[in-house]
Amino acid sequence: MRTIDFYFDFASPYGFIAAMQIEALARPVRWRPFLLGSVYKAVGQSPLEHPLKREYVIEVDAPRMARQIGLQLKVPKGFPEHSLPPSRAFYWIERQEPARAVEFAKAAYRKYWLHGCSTSDATVALDVAASLGYDREVVSKGVQESEVKNRLVVENEEAIRRGVFGSPFFFADGERFWGSDRMSMLPP
Amino acid sequence: MRTIDFYFDFASPYGFIAAMQIEALARPVRWRPFLLGSVYKAVGQSPLEHPLKREYVIEVDAPRMARQIGLQLKVPKGFPEHSLPPSRAFYWIERQEPARAVEFAKAAYRKYWLHGCSTSDATVALDVAASLGYDREVVSKGVQESEVKNRLVVENEEAIRRGVFGSPFFFADGERFWGSDRMSMLPP
Repeated sequence: MRTIDFYFDFASPYGFIAAMQIEALARPVRWRPFLLGSVYKAVGQSPLEHPLKREYVIEVDAPRMARQIGLQLKVPKGFPEHSLPPSRAFYWIERQEPARAVEFAKAAYRKYWLHGCSTSDATVALDVAASLGYDREVVSKGVQESEVKNRLVVENEEAIRRGVFGSPFFFADGERFWGSDRMSMLPP
Repeated sequence: MRTIDFYFDFASPYGFIAAMQIEALARPVRWRPFLLGSVYKAVGQSPLEHPLKREYVIEVDAPRMARQIGLQLKVPKGFPEHSLPPSRAFYWIERQEPARAVEFAKAAYRKYWLHGCSTSDATVALDVAASLGYDREVVSKGVQESEVKNRLVVENEEAIRRGVFGSPFFFADGERFWGSDRMSMLPP
């Protein structure tokens, strides 16, 4: 089975919308959280910097897309902020129990985009891990390990190297797809 | 019948894709060419300025979207350039024969995005008008009339006032939609 690479930032509304739907695909998916801020810094842009576009995305378009799949969007407190805590927690969990990392990603996304919790708040990411049965102390120490920190740095660099410039971003059969609205075009 | 306002720039590939499909809607459409450059200047952004994103849009995504509706995209010579000549010609024709302006818009779009002609080349816009039976000399003088020039300025200002920040952009029942990929969400 050909794997689809799914790059996403936990602070991205369209990443959330993609995460809620991607398991409907009949192909295996490799979930890759990354920090959009690192990519923007590398490529020198910031797509949502203009108020007009940001207002449209956050107030009009993303909520409308979410409603289409029966979800009521709630913008994370402090948005837009970085999503370092859940990204590191994801890679820490992936090292322990690869199969549960996706479970964590979906639960975290719901916390941020349905309950409006802050993506940069380390406590929230720990809450999500705890809700999956992980020990808060263990996770809290785990995400500070240099192997986990470095892993996220490496994933960000890999995303930049592959030309990722937004979230979500997909690679399928060597082809690139940007945006949750391109998921229907992913090769079956 | 409630009218849909359809804002587009002749130099926009997604505007082209929208123009090729919008008549399938069961609602009347008000076609409004405008200059994206004027809007970008007003709102202080330039979405395709980054090479990564531009390459993706022009080489990957827009051609893929066009293929889905059976069209083979050819990027206009000199892209991205302004589209002053066809925009003025559109409003000149609309003053003479309102019903034929849409015909002109579709023919011009095909010239730019299927045949790769330059959007800034006044000769190309005249060729299109001539192909619809208009006298080249008459059109050439017509588009220089201050009423026509002012009309485009007013339309650009109106687009900015209404919050248009990309092409295509739609207003339907007071709701905003940005992008050809949102046409399926326009209220019936």
